Amino acid sequence: MEEYLARIGPADEAAMRAATQRQRLLTKPAGSLGVLEDLSVRVAGMTGGAAGVPAPAVVAVFAADHGVHAQGVSPWPQEVTAAMLANFAAGGAAVNAFAANNGVDVRVVDVGVATDVDELDIVHAKVRAGTRDLSVGPALTADEVLAAVRVGFELADQLVADGYRCLLTGDMGIANTTASAALIATFTGATAADVTGRGTGIDDATLAHKTEVVRAALDRHEVPASDPLSALAAYGGLEHAALAGYILGGAANKVPVILDGVIAGAAALVAQALHPAVVEYCVAGHRSAEPGHAVALKALGLQPLVDLDLRLGEGTGAVLAYPILTCAVRALAQMATFESAGISSG
Amino acid sequence: MEEYLARIGPADEAAMRAATQRQRLLTKPAGSLGVLEDLSVRVAGMTGGAAGVPAPAVVAVFAADHGVHAQGVSPWPQEVTAAMLANFAAGGAAVNAFAANNGVDVRVVDVGVATDVDELDIVHAKVRAGTRDLSVGPALTADEVLAAVRVGFELADQLVADGYRCLLTGDMGIANTTASAALIATFTGATAADVTGRGTGIDDATLAHKTEVVRAALDRHEVPASDPLSALAAYGGLEHAALAGYILGGAANKVPVILDGVIAGAAALVAQALHPAVVEYCVAGHRSAEPGHAVALKALGLQPLVDLDLRLGEGTGAVLAYPILTCAVRALAQMATFESAGISSG
Repeated sequence: MEEYLARIGPADEAAMRAATQRQRLLTKPAGSLGVLEDLSVRVAGMTGGAAGVPAPAVVAVFAADHGVHAQGVSPWPQEVTAAMLANFAAGGAAVNAFAANNGVDVRVVDVGVATDVDELDIVHAKVRAGTRDLSVGPALTADEVLAAVRVGFELADQLVADGYRCLLTGDMGIANTTASAALIATFTGATAADVTGRGTGIDDATLAHKTEVVRAALDRHEVPASDPLSALAAYGGLEHAALAGYILGGAANKVPVILDGVIAGAAALVAQALHPAVVEYCVAGHRSAEPGHAVALKALGLQPLVDLDLRLGEGTGAVLAYPILTCAVRALAQMATFESAGISSG
Repeated sequence: MEEYLARIGPADEAAMRAATQRQRLLTKPAGSLGVLEDLSVRVAGMTGGAAGVPAPAVVAVFAADHGVHAQGVSPWPQEVTAAMLANFAAGGAAVNAFAANNGVDVRVVDVGVATDVDELDIVHAKVRAGTRDLSVGPALTADEVLAAVRVGFELADQLVADGYRCLLTGDMGIANTTASAALIATFTGATAADVTGRGTGIDDATLAHKTEVVRAALDRHEVPASDPLSALAAYGGLEHAALAGYILGGAANKVPVILDGVIAGAAALVAQALHPAVVEYCVAGHRSAEPGHAVALKALGLQPLVDLDLRLGEGTGAVLAYPILTCAVRALAQMATFESAGISSG
């Protein structure tokens, strides 16, 4: 872990100053590209002002199962996680359609699916077959947490070595909004009621039960915000740990990391607690309908690019936002200046 | 005009029902793609359920000047309109960068630029060299209005004949937010103060003056909402008239029309007043920072896809939204169903 964290540094301030300067010279009224101007400056800081847009891009979909599923927090059977992995591998899921549309490659990673998925053509990095039930004890051991973080960090290293210049987060795991809620409450001080939501669709009674499961788990484990690895051990999930590692790995490699929804938001809070500078490399792809996500984004200080009531996960919100990021960067890189175009700047 | 309007009919309800049905079968929790699910159903209604995504796409940037510029409503010299046309033609503007990024072609149309731009490689369809000053009399004659509407409608016909399956709106014209404000007030009943904004950037004193110009023009011309052609004659602009024709032409050809910002919103209100069904073919690309735009979108009943404080125009907001539309359509077209993927639907 120390070795990973030592590779992370702050964004490049000189590159950000240069980008801010260039924004002022471009053939448009100052500020008229709104959020995209700041975004282009942030990306310059991440990459050190690398030429061109951050491409190609890849979305890594980390999949795992959750012992707390036994508590009835989701209407979906646990086997759906593995079935959806087969669907990802066959190209039939929403994230496949979005990724094909937006020129993003997809990597699916089994970091802890309960079912055997050995036959699928995906990245096999199972740390254990699902977490233990966070409502009765720790979800993971300290070693399991580190192993899952390593899966994410090393995948980020490998993807950048393969030529990718933008890393998007994705996730799949029935019941993973429960672990997300506990993590977000841990790092933000929000209550279980503030951060527990309907996931992909539960009724009022199940929501009340799920909220109580989260509240009781927070009471049982009492992990301080200053101890992110213990929080992962207490609540899981394996995909959250891998995502935290992947986000750290993106920052270590100085490439933009586009976060998807509430699972990524929880993982980013873990990564931020491990190294505060990591957030300088994160872009919030979208705001999900899950209430904990807005709480997480606020704590991360990130403004989402897309806000269209998505609550699917898989990386769909991150993939949807990718062309917005590349538009912002391309405008900064390719637009004429008032001087080069021979236009009076008013 | 009658001939144009006779070609417009309602969206295809059978195609929308089929799309709604298929959404329910796809491998995701019902509703989890949020706004994109409704969008995919709307597009099916526009195209009659045409196979594949609406591609290729083109953004038509209609450019014109405004006599009211003489009243000091903008800090920019009028010559900037023509200079920006040269910038578009050279590929140096924001809309060029966004369009290149998102695979959208650009057509630039002079429908009424005050300066001579004959040497540029653009579509030359100048109706007159800028409008008359709306603060001292009608901006256009009835014949000029019809000629400009025809430019837009016939360009839409031509673009669809050329193979384009999605039409995006763009605009360029120094002082065109003033005419937009007067049009939006006419069709929504909003006050001049509600709909007049800072455009691409004016100070408080200029905003107060601009608002008074709009207020006085509304008093002077007193055009009822039921007379859209007279509203175009009273206030212009030539690009608003052409955009109204282009939007009508998109609807007549049953292709999605992605609206950019406040100028397109004003033109869409004109088109809606001419034929209410036209809105069924419109998608709001984004919400601009200009206050009249939110008022226009509300009256049109459209929800913007992107909301990132853009206030540039040119079509930038529409181009930014195009991949969101194609993602929505591609998910509907290409995702597996629970049955085809062999997954329990919970």
